[in-house]
Amino acid sequence: MVRLAAAMWGALRLDPGAETPLYRQLASQIRELIRAGRLASGDRLPATRELAARLGLNRSTVNAAYALLESEGLIQGHVGRGSFVLARLPARGVDWAGLLEPAARLSRLAGFPAGEPTGVISFATSRPDESLFPLEEFRATCREVVDSAQARELLQLGSPSGYGPLREYLLAEARREGVARSGDDILITNGCQQALDLLQRVLAPAGETVALEEPASPGLRSLFLRAGVRLVGVPIGDDGLELSQLERILKVERPRLLVLTPNFQNPTGLSLSREARHTVAELVRAAGAVLVENDIYGELRYSGAPAPTLKQLDESGDTVLVRSFSKIAFPGLRVGWLIGPRALVARLAEAKQWTDLHTDQLSQAVLLRFAVSGRLARHRERVRAAGSERLAVVLAACRKHLPPGTFWTRPQGGMNLWVRLPEPLDAAELLPRARQEQVTYLPGKFFEVSRPQGNGLRISFAAVAPAAIRTGIAVLGRIFQAEMDRARAAGRLNAAPALV
Amino acid sequence: MVRLAAAMWGALRLDPGAETPLYRQLASQIRELIRAGRLASGDRLPATRELAARLGLNRSTVNAAYALLESEGLIQGHVGRGSFVLARLPARGVDWAGLLEPAARLSRLAGFPAGEPTGVISFATSRPDESLFPLEEFRATCREVVDSAQARELLQLGSPSGYGPLREYLLAEARREGVARSGDDILITNGCQQALDLLQRVLAPAGETVALEEPASPGLRSLFLRAGVRLVGVPIGDDGLELSQLERILKVERPRLLVLTPNFQNPTGLSLSREARHTVAELVRAAGAVLVENDIYGELRYSGAPAPTLKQLDESGDTVLVRSFSKIAFPGLRVGWLIGPRALVARLAEAKQWTDLHTDQLSQAVLLRFAVSGRLARHRERVRAAGSERLAVVLAACRKHLPPGTFWTRPQGGMNLWVRLPEPLDAAELLPRARQEQVTYLPGKFFEVSRPQGNGLRISFAAVAPAAIRTGIAVLGRIFQAEMDRARAAGRLNAAPALV
Repeated sequence: MVRLAAAMWGALRLDPGAETPLYRQLASQIRELIRAGRLASGDRLPATRELAARLGLNRSTVNAAYALLESEGLIQGHVGRGSFVLARLPARGVDWAGLLEPAARLSRLAGFPAGEPTGVISFATSRPDESLFPLEEFRATCREVVDSAQARELLQLGSPSGYGPLREYLLAEARREGVARSGDDILITNGCQQALDLLQRVLAPAGETVALEEPASPGLRSLFLRAGVRLVGVPIGDDGLELSQLERILKVERPRLLVLTPNFQNPTGLSLSREARHTVAELVRAAGAVLVENDIYGELRYSGAPAPTLKQLDESGDTVLVRSFSKIAFPGLRVGWLIGPRALVARLAEAKQWTDLHTDQLSQAVLLRFAVSGRLARHRERVRAAGSERLAVVLAACRKHLPPGTFWTRPQGGMNLWVRLPEPLDAAELLPRARQEQVTYLPGKFFEVSRPQGNGLRISFAAVAPAAIRTGIAVLGRIFQAEMDRARAAGRLNAAPALV
Repeated sequence: MVRLAAAMWGALRLDPGAETPLYRQLASQIRELIRAGRLASGDRLPATRELAARLGLNRSTVNAAYALLESEGLIQGHVGRGSFVLARLPARGVDWAGLLEPAARLSRLAGFPAGEPTGVISFATSRPDESLFPLEEFRATCREVVDSAQARELLQLGSPSGYGPLREYLLAEARREGVARSGDDILITNGCQQALDLLQRVLAPAGETVALEEPASPGLRSLFLRAGVRLVGVPIGDDGLELSQLERILKVERPRLLVLTPNFQNPTGLSLSREARHTVAELVRAAGAVLVENDIYGELRYSGAPAPTLKQLDESGDTVLVRSFSKIAFPGLRVGWLIGPRALVARLAEAKQWTDLHTDQLSQAVLLRFAVSGRLARHRERVRAAGSERLAVVLAACRKHLPPGTFWTRPQGGMNLWVRLPEPLDAAELLPRARQEQVTYLPGKFFEVSRPQGNGLRISFAAVAPAAIRTGIAVLGRIFQAEMDRARAAGRLNAAPALV
């Protein structure tokens, strides 16, 4: 209460350069606090000395403001006790500006791009290509579900844990694959985003420390930042996750949660080697942190041998595995899941209940039917074939078009690769030029955790047709090269115009 | 950090009656903290005097525990500086017991009943009767949606604000009805539960005060309790909401949010009169609190004249209106919405994005089609007719079967009524007897906010067929009467056995 009040007084902003004298500005702002109900009858105002110090004012200025308010009958001074609010002005409703003042921690989330107009080649969103959606198979699946005898129960209130038949199917699949142990349980969520959000709410309240790979996906980063969690980035270097840094961070920062994406990480597209997975599992277990394995891209492998999940390697059974239908099938149907120790899953299910009761049942049943009918497996093969081609195309285009000194990752699967521009190029500064030429990407600043990523950018290639990938990367290469030339010229002449 | 550490030490539990001496119990628990990684190499242990005082132990007990740990090489004492953790034991993974220790504030949520076995007459859940679901109309709607040209876009990633055509339809309907103003916007949510949860997250963080009607629905109460919000109940007396109490609470407790259900409140079924609505709107506006109008039962009026929503009466436009398809149509499809000032809705949409990206699009499109095709309106009439009959049946059964001294509400709509048993009956104590006779209800303790509600219970009648309502209330009446008789006899004899 005292801290909130201090924040309110500290938030007053006076302008010494304004026409209105400072004491009148101060009186006016206090009047507004009373009018908005943030100061009520009987509240004590800060001592004049204290408020003057806080606002960097002369004490006589505060005295004058209080005298003005007293003359208006709004406050009353009592010798030795201070000044008190006397009466409330007619209120004017909710003080939205005060309530919705953006918290400082939200500022890093601002400016996240909205959808793109058509005609733009967008490398900005990590999502599947909707032209690959098997619409007739989806339609047939929906018909089978709504015509079935189960349709009625789908429409009734369901379980916070998820639709029973879907839970059983996914858990059986996970057991068969060796990623679920006897002590594990499953919770269905609205995609992986909600799984991660629930883990935050149950395990990492405001002030806790969470470690993420850096660069990190905006969705992951933002959900923790919003909640006031302290984030620490484990750097992904040119050789993948820096294990010595992970060891140091686990020891020194002692995060409650560590969220890793060992397969085709967003945004880098990189994967952990089999050896690195063993090391990670040991380090995390020794540190006693909760490991969350975000495996939403795992089925999108285009080359190389699959490695075991961290969940499989963790003999203790403590690892939480997060998966989703969204990257393979249909992101518009919000169904993901997590598998972890029973005690944890029970608590997450309780949190889920009070968050939104349960996940939509129609989509759970449709995706279950899509899977058990074999349609998902067939679709997955088509998605893999398309992804494999697109990955090859984007890598070839990078080789052909990106200027010397540019670094990019060589993923073996997934939807994204990460580009690092040579100094002094900044990906956010160059984005408007790319947009002018109808090409977009997500610049590095949206992926920052602990370190600047300004020279990085994400190329999400999975939703872009091969020809458009070639055109788009060629455009970007031209823009980046031009900026390099300009910077080089500016270094010599310091006056050359931009060439774009 | 200091406070977390203090909580860790304060959470140690020693048993003076155990076989193991206290110093060994203490040493063992500190050893576990080291093993679990909650104390790491270099951490300082509390001073012996301080820990002794905190745990109510003799200081020599703490000294002995520290000496034992030092002899094991786990800690080391430095004269004048205290004792430090020397080495970490091989960790054994995550300390789930420590992480998931239920917070004190969650204890009031425990024991919330799960589903009922078939054959039970359940008055325990406020939901529609699935036998009334118009299955063929639902099937036809789904077919129309998945066969339409829009099917493909439904499957792609959508907007955090909701499916565009559904937002436009609902906002146009709200404008036509006069409940949306020009400054308002709409956000689609996973049912009303998520709308309320997002309002909590954006407007009422831990420590803030929120006022609810009391008794309050478990879903509403629990979402705020989970988040560490301070709840204040505005009592609903036999004459409805106590407006003088509301005025006092707004003035004295100064809640950030006030959540009211003016139509057929859950659990009482009571509504605010037109006059009371005007008073509420004025009081809230004068207080500068945010009013959230939970109007999920508004369309289930069986008798009496409809009154304007609080949103309509609030000229300032500050009121947030929450509605849902769940009580009229299909709760298994999780689609609700809120309408409020644009600045607030923008912030809620941002929170929604990081919570679960967006609401499931298939169900949004299906419910939109169900509404625009006229099927929703036809279904609503059938639901109203059934609800009206059931309400009449339950009220008649209460008159016939509940013992003298019992009070119950007389709603004009909705799904619930509230029963208050005569002293000294306790609804939770009597529930096991009702269950034995295959009848259930939700006892008052789940609806408590600031006052005990032990003699209250909720009868949710909407999902129970008329004959079962008669049977169920007759069973309850018999049990309550028997307990009255027993209590009366006990008052005389203090030794009579229970009669059931």
